Order: sequence, then structure tokens, then C-alpha cells
Amino acid sequence: MTDRARGFAREVAALREQAPLVHCLTNIVAAGFSANALLALGASPAMVENAEESAEFAGVAGAVLANLGTLSEERNRALRAAVRGAEHSGTPWVLDPVAVGALRHRTELAADLVRSRPAVVRGNAAEVLALAGNGGSGKGVESLAGSESAVDTARKFAGENGCVVAVSGEVDYVTDGTETVAVPGGHPLMAKITGMGCALGASTAALLAVTPDAPLSAAVTASQVFAEAGERAGAAARGPGSFVVEFVDELHAIGGDA
Amino acid sequence: MTDRARGFAREVAALREQAPLVHCLTNIVAAGFSANALLALGASPAMVENAEESAEFAGVAGAVLANLGTLSEERNRALRAAVRGAEHSGTPWVLDPVAVGALRHRTELAADLVRSRPAVVRGNAAEVLALAGNGGSGKGVESLAGSESAVDTARKFAGENGCVVAVSGEVDYVTDGTETVAVPGGHPLMAKITGMGCALGASTAALLAVTPDAPLSAAVTASQVFAEAGERAGAAARGPGSFVVEFVDELHAIGGDA
Amino acid sequence: MTDRARGFAREVAALREQAPLVHCLTNIVAAGFSANALLALGASPAMVENAEESAEFAGVAGAVLANLGTLSEERNRALRAAVRGAEHSGTPWVLDPVAVGALRHRTELAADLVRSRPAVVRGNAAEVLALAGNGGSGKGVESLAGSESAVDTARKFAGENGCVVAVSGEVDYVTDGTETVAVPGGHPLMAKITGMGCALGASTAALLAVTPDAPLSAAVTASQVFAEAGERAGAAARGPGSFVVEFVDELHAIGGDA
Repeated sequence: MTDRARGFAREVAALREQAPLVHCLTNIVAAGFSANALLALGASPAMVENAEESAEFAGVAGAVLANLGTLSEERNRALRAAVRGAEHSGTPWVLDPVAVGALRHRTELAADLVRSRPAVVRGNAAEVLALAGNGGSGKGVESLAGSESAVDTARKFAGENGCVVAVSGEVDYVTDGTETVAVPGGHPLMAKITGMGCALGASTAALLAVTPDAPLSAAVTASQVFAEAGERAGAAARGPGSFVVEFVDELHAIGGDA
Repeated sequence: MTDRARGFAREVAALREQAPLVHCLTNIVAAGFSANALLALGASPAMVENAEESAEFAGVAGAVLANLGTLSEERNRALRAAVRGAEHSGTPWVLDPVAVGALRHRTELAADLVRSRPAVVRGNAAEVLALAGNGGSGKGVESLAGSESAVDTARKFAGENGCVVAVSGEVDYVTDGTETVAVPGGHPLMAKITGMGCALGASTAALLAVTPDAPLSAAVTASQVFAEAGERAGAAARGPGSFVVEFVDELHAIGGDA
Repeated sequence: MTDRARGFAREVAALREQAPLVHCLTNIVAAGFSANALLALGASPAMVENAEESAEFAGVAGAVLANLGTLSEERNRALRAAVRGAEHSGTPWVLDPVAVGALRHRTELAADLVRSRPAVVRGNAAEVLALAGNGGSGKGVESLAGSESAVDTARKFAGENGCVVAVSGEVDYVTDGTETVAVPGGHPLMAKITGMGCALGASTAALLAVTPDAPLSAAVTASQVFAEAGERAGAAARGPGSFVVEFVDELHAIGGDA
């Protein structure tokens, strides 16, 4: 066990013991992978994404993930309902502002959702810069800027909005506006797997469900778990196809079942 | 070949020979895995899920799967259209009442759909109890109650509605109200794979397409095939990531192509 | 390196260097696999599929994929918007007419979209025959007719519509109406993987983005890359589950990262 693994062992143990219900509103690309990552870690994912059910379900869940990928009119309504439901019932929630900056429509939606006070915002540098109003034009979901370029903006945004901001990249930076933690590690193939960031957002929500009063710790632990599983998977994989397989196995092993 | 494998060999051979068209209305999480499971078994999956096409397509297909996961307004309409189309044309269909009980909205939808006479209902204990009006509050898609807790309710519901009910769990129970078959086996990792139950529902529809007059046998065979493939996959897998890979390979091997 | 691999090395190198943004409107079954295939090849996939964002995004992207699987009312609107946006901005786009012929509704939609001048149409024989108005009734997404049965129709359609038509099958045929290229190879397990054709359509779009003036070459290269990766994956796979893993690894290796 590495030092890092030892550091997050307690939170992961709590996750496995409590198997929190994580209400995910996510996209058609990453839904399956995100659910499998959550199950491997020990959480209970539930993908509920219509306006009629989302608000009710956000009150029952341990945490909510609001991921803006593959938006549709109905998913848009469901996201707003879920986030209002989470705010109303005090359920902590994670905002994953996919492709914000590249597309005006969702930049506005994300800005609206932020008013319902996410516990954690997780995105790449371009998305975080855009959410804070500092963005140029992003190139879709892929961030061209390194994560370090968004750290100052993330810190300011976190302080102003009373949330934690996690900027993903070669090094992940997690900040609550006061404290900033760098999480290095992982593997270059992680950038070649669709939905890797989405699954990290979902896992952040799962950890938030078991440590609702410590969103900084939840987001740092999620990044550490992904860095650790990514390193191990990368050592065994021959390419991105086998990497995904190894990565899910490693999430499960980290969770303690191996 | 185990005794169990010998028992279902004829139905699976028919499935492979006829390659029935299985019209799936399913969810964004399980759609890919379900289609791959159907292809591995020898069926021809077709995911058609809009209201304009669903009724027409249900008349052409060998069987229809109505899975209530990731509901949306449009999928809701499409489910109603498909199920009416199936009833009208005599196409046998399977109801998979995902998360019924946990969410009022879909409990009502499921009750409506049942009036169009599914050949088979497949769910976990919580879903079956809720569908029959005996449920407490389910915990999303994960069933906390063992499958045996829903057997009496399943038997009664099957008798009253003239359908087969399959309750998934560590042991699967399949009943037509008179006869009840227990299918043990499988592997604990099956509970760690998203969409495993959805893929079982889809495979039940595929078997129903080749034995439309024997829904009990179709549902039992589907459970046996999954138990067999699950045991073999579990023996080879290192975790849930490699389990999925092995499981699809085993479905294909059981189908006779290995 | 085979002769074939040497033939497409330059286009693939350009793809890896430019990492073009490929705007995919695709279906819930194939979205994850298609995105992973694009990433493995070196492209930047972005799944944007709502009417509000699609037209704008089509103008920014290097190429657009319009795949008609799992149609919905909203996806229908988004497809029309994206295709008009692509035409308006001169972005080359690929039409994948999934299940056209089997379903009247989408046959009409496909005919409408063709008026916005796709650079490439990619489908199986039944879909190409139906799009050209020569179809019988297709069996969903699976083509029963061999690809050679649609070559004459494809050639005529390509000539009349000023586009390239790629007919997928055991042998792929790619034609611009004048020249017709046969691409043999691949592996029988490719027919057992859901979304294989969809991922080929997406990869065609990626190659089109780097050679916008040579759509015939882009479509031939995409077919060659899939044939090559399929042969290699087939040699290592034990069934369709392990085939997918090997196939994505091989796409990545072909791209030059192995």
C-alpha cells in the first residue's frame, strides 16, 4: 500500500460500508462506465434523469451528480429539478460542467445551477476557467490548457461560491479557496478513455455522501483513488481498451475486495 | 457441459439458428452491454425507442423488452406505444420495472403497462414487491431484500396477471403462478456490474421470441444461461472490469461459437 | 506493417497530429464505444446532440457525424440543426442511416438530411439500398444482404448526390460514383459487437476532418484501419467480450502509440 493509499483508506472503507445511493444525472457516453466505477468502489449508483422524478430522488439520495454532457431539453429540466431538490433537502451535490465555455447554452445553464450551491465543482482547466467567466473558447470536452493554469481562478471561485473546486489534469488541484491540494499521479492513457472525468465526478459524489461535511477531503480522496488505480492499470495495460478493464478491477481492489 | 447447460442447450440452439429480432426499449446505462449480450447469444438486438417508430417496430420484432430505466417523457410515450403495439400484434414482451417502488412516477407507469399483458416480468425482490403493491421503499435499483422474500408475492401476481414473474437475486425464482423454479448459481461479482439485470431481461426477451408459447421455460433458460456464464466468468476474472469481458465471451461460448 | 497499413499510415499520422474535433450525434448504444474508438485513433470526440447547441457546434468542429440510431424527437431536431450548420459552415459530415428501410419514419428523415450534402454515407447493404429507394424491408440494424448486393446502387447514388458511399460488410465497398474500392479483411466477430458500424462511421468523420477534400480516401482509410485492427484483435480474442478490448488497443497501436 502506498502512502497515498493509506491516506484515503478510511474514507474508502466508509464508502464500502455505507454503500451510499448516488443519484447521477449524466450523459449517454459515460453513464455505463460511471455506474461501473461507482459499483466497483462500493457505492449504489442510480441514474434518474427526468424532471418528474429527479427532485424527489435527490431528497432520498446520499449525494447528487449533475453532469452537463449530452444535454437535452428534458435533461436540462431534470438537472434544474435535481439541483433544486438537493438544495432543498440538504443533499450535497457535485457539478461537472462538461464542455462549458465551448457552448454558450450550457455556460448559462451551469451559471444558473451554481446558484443552488454545489458542494464540489469538478472540471478540466478550460471548463473551470469558463465557469468563472475567465475562459477563452474551449475545444469541446478536451482541455488544451494544463490544470495549473486554472488554479488561481479555481481558488477565487471556490472562495466566492463557498464550494470546493477540483481541476483535473496531469496533476489534479483541489481547493476550497483557502487550502489547495495537488494530487499528482495517474497515467497518460486516462486521457484516452471517454468519461474518465465524468466517472471521477461521480466518485467524488459518492465520497461526498459519506463525508458530507468535508467536501475538500471527499474531492481529494476521489482524485487520489483515481490516480492510484490509474497508475496500477497503466502498468498492466497494453492500450486504452485493456486500460479500462484494469482500471475498474483496480477501483474494486482499492475498495478492498481484491 | 454441466447438467444445467445440457438442459438449456436446445433453446439456445434455436436462438442461435433463428437470430430473432429483439426490440429493446432500455436505458442509457445498460443499452450497450445489453446489445452485446444479445449479439453474443445469437439474437439481433434493435434499440428503437421513440413513439413514432415503437408501435410499428413491435409488430415486426420477435419480442419486445420494456425496461423502465432512465425514463424520460419521450421514452415514457415510446414504452406505451411499443407495449400497445406488442399487445395488438401478439408479440410477446418482457417488462423490467427498474426502480419501481423507489419512485412513484414509474410505479404508476409500470402498473399501466402491466394491463397490456407482459409475458414475463423480471425484477429484483424490491421491484416485484412494489409492482404487486406490497413494497416498502426500494433503494433505487439495488435490492436490499433477498429474492426469496418476493416469491409468494411473485407467484400470486403471476397467477392474477397470467404472466411469468422472474425474481433476480443470489437465487433466481421464476414462477407462472403454479410452477416455481429456483435457479441458483452465478457469481457475487454480477451484483457489481451495471445493467446485469437489464441484460438478463433482454436475454429473456430473446428466448421468448423463439419459444413464445413457453414463457416459463424462456425465463428459466435465461436465468440458467446467466448463472452458467457468471460462474465461468467469475472463475477467470480478477474484478468487475475483467468479469464483464469474460462474461460476454462466455455468453458467446454457451451459444455454441467457442 | 502490412501493405495496407503502410497505405494509410500518412492519413492516420495526420489524424494523430491534428486531433480534430469530431462532433458526433449518435445513439445511446454506441456512444461510449465510438468515443473510445475516436480517442484511440487520436481524434477529439464531442457528443453534442441538442438542437440549441448542434448547429453552432457543427461550425466549430472538424467534421460531423449524423448517426440515426435511437432516434428521438429532440435528437431528430438536433440532427437537422447539425446538418444544416455543417452545410452552412462547410464542415464535412458523414451520414450513418441506421435502420433506414426498416422504419419509414427514419427513411424520410434520412432522405431529408441527404439534401444537406453529406461528404460520406456509410451503411450496410440494406440501409444503402433503402436510402436509394431500392430497399426491401431491412431487419433492423442487421443487414442480411451481402455488401456486394448494394455496390451498383451505391455507385449510382454517389454519382447522383455528389457524395461517397461506403457499404459495410464482409468486404467493404467505397465509391464516389466513378472509382470503387473494395476493402476486404476484418474478422467475423466484428458482426457480434454492437456499434462497430457506428464507430466506423465516427472514424470516417475523423479522417474526413483531416482530408476534407478527399472523402473517398478518408472512407477507404477508415475501412482499412478497422479491417487491420479487426484482424489483429480477432487473432488474440477468445470471444466478443475480449475482442472489443483488443480492438480498441489495436486502434491505438495503429495510431502509432504502441
